[in-house]
Amino acid sequence: MLFSGRRRLLTALLQAQRWPFQPSREMRLVQFQASHLMGPHLGLESGNGGGVINLNAFDPTLPKTMLEFLEQGEAALSVARRALAAQLPVLPRSEVTFLAPVTRPDKVVCVGMNYVDHCKEQNVPVPKEPIIFSKFASSIVGPYDDIVLPPKSQEVDWEVELAVVIGRNGKHIKATDAMAHVAGFTVAHDVSARDWQMKRNGKQWLLGKTFDTFCPLGPALVTKDSVADPHNLKICCRVNGEVVQSSNTNQMVFKTEELIAWVSQFVTLYPGDVILTGTPPGVGVFRKPPVFLKVGWLKGGKGQGPEVGSRIQACVCRCVCD
Amino acid sequence: MLFSGRRRLLTALLQAQRWPFQPSREMRLVQFQASHLMGPHLGLESGNGGGVINLNAFDPTLPKTMLEFLEQGEAALSVARRALAAQLPVLPRSEVTFLAPVTRPDKVVCVGMNYVDHCKEQNVPVPKEPIIFSKFASSIVGPYDDIVLPPKSQEVDWEVELAVVIGRNGKHIKATDAMAHVAGFTVAHDVSARDWQMKRNGKQWLLGKTFDTFCPLGPALVTKDSVADPHNLKICCRVNGEVVQSSNTNQMVFKTEELIAWVSQFVTLYPGDVILTGTPPGVGVFRKPPVFLKVGWLKGGKGQGPEVGSRIQACVCRCVCD
Repeated sequence: MLFSGRRRLLTALLQAQRWPFQPSREMRLVQFQASHLMGPHLGLESGNGGGVINLNAFDPTLPKTMLEFLEQGEAALSVARRALAAQLPVLPRSEVTFLAPVTRPDKVVCVGMNYVDHCKEQNVPVPKEPIIFSKFASSIVGPYDDIVLPPKSQEVDWEVELAVVIGRNGKHIKATDAMAHVAGFTVAHDVSARDWQMKRNGKQWLLGKTFDTFCPLGPALVTKDSVADPHNLKICCRVNGEVVQSSNTNQMVFKTEELIAWVSQFVTLYPGDVILTGTPPGVGVFRKPPVFLKVGWLKGGKGQGPEVGSRIQACVCRCVCD
Repeated sequence: MLFSGRRRLLTALLQAQRWPFQPSREMRLVQFQASHLMGPHLGLESGNGGGVINLNAFDPTLPKTMLEFLEQGEAALSVARRALAAQLPVLPRSEVTFLAPVTRPDKVVCVGMNYVDHCKEQNVPVPKEPIIFSKFASSIVGPYDDIVLPPKSQEVDWEVELAVVIGRNGKHIKATDAMAHVAGFTVAHDVSARDWQMKRNGKQWLLGKTFDTFCPLGPALVTKDSVADPHNLKICCRVNGEVVQSSNTNQMVFKTEELIAWVSQFVTLYPGDVILTGTPPGVGVFRKPPVFLKVGWLKGGKGQGPEVGSRIQACVCRCVCD
């Protein structure tokens, strides 16, 4: 009877997909919401595409936003490490909504023309210095949220990017010290209204890059110790199932360390700051004829949307009208 | 004896300059620090150049940052209004350090070539649409803080600007509704490294505009009901006592309402967002020969630095080495 009761319990657990978490050395930090929880929470994605461990349930003293979590530095990370090693309940993926892994950072720093093969595609020389522009933090949305196609643009394009998330304050950071300032990596979609980027606004790129919803991020902030070599990752973007961008982060002109050293000569980097490291070739604007995103495109499903490596996975958004 | 005691008390009060606050209809919100207080506090400047009323002492439930204060909207403002009408102790100006009236906003939106007379100075046509660029929030410093001249630039220039602070969320705001989204006005110094703005970084202005300390703000966020007409204010900048910019906000090409309507077509505006509305003529780069800021310049004193109107007063910074 007791055995049967336990079996029923096990079956119920299986049906709910509430597997105890399998310890792993990979730390995939997420911000999520669930119907039974009030507001955003911090969690650990239990493997690429898995469910979520509620870090705030594991330790109620942990902050509920990634920004505050990163500001607490090693103290907060060590709690997450303990959670990773413990056998904890996992919320099934179907019960959670993933937010961007970082919201309201001080800065979203972007790098232009930072892939050798993307420069060739445009027939422009490889830059001798990084070209830095930005998005407002208000453009950040979750990894599966809609991209709202604004009526003001007819040329909204895709750009998959590897994004670096800063974990520690710094100014004038040397390239050799740069990785000590990195919390981890995530995937970004640098959605770009080419008409506004290239032809309007006095040729300042900002407006074309920063419409609301033009920066899907995540789902996971994969900590740096979980990524063996961020500069040797397959990077691709699919639009409606078709691979439109496919390259490797080894094509980056300026690597993470050089970008952090460069940017921190100008500005202090804060925990939570996001650096989008540039996109490989295959964007719509340089196709003949050019192709741009349309309402209904990029709609979810496995293997859709931008993707980096096998560990820093994809964000998949659906294009909708404003 | 009693009379004499009272007299001594009055004398002591006079010496400490702790005058009871004179009720006024002008609301000048500030963020400040004082040696006897822990961390930043919210206050009311008791008239242009006066001491500070500690709003957090008046009502300990009020938040301590302007961002949270503005997010609370009318509820928080009504507390400040009650404080304004009450007889409260005033911290003498010598005992407080003014911070920028807003720190860590989601956005610092900037507008280029937005004064008719500044366009004439450059011999360029008046823009048909606003030209929008940005600074990172990390460039914001207090109104009397140092401007750090970076070794990377030899061409750091001054730009006085009227800054608008957003008080209420909004997207697709109509020009006729725009003032309902404004909390108030302050003065900004849009410090600009012309070499980086105009010749480097693929001609994207961001880096030249966003070095640390390149956005002195304040001291006061003067609420909109305290400014009769923001588009008829004398605006001037003094460098080492010499008036280098002198114009009127009636020269603005796109006024506050149009700028809010324009920007909110692209992005959602949040409470605390700052819009720098452009600079009048007289900047250093267009002088013959060009003049740029030097270490030790702009050092404080009455009537120094950028200034807007008689109510939205000046910020005064001293240039120092990195």
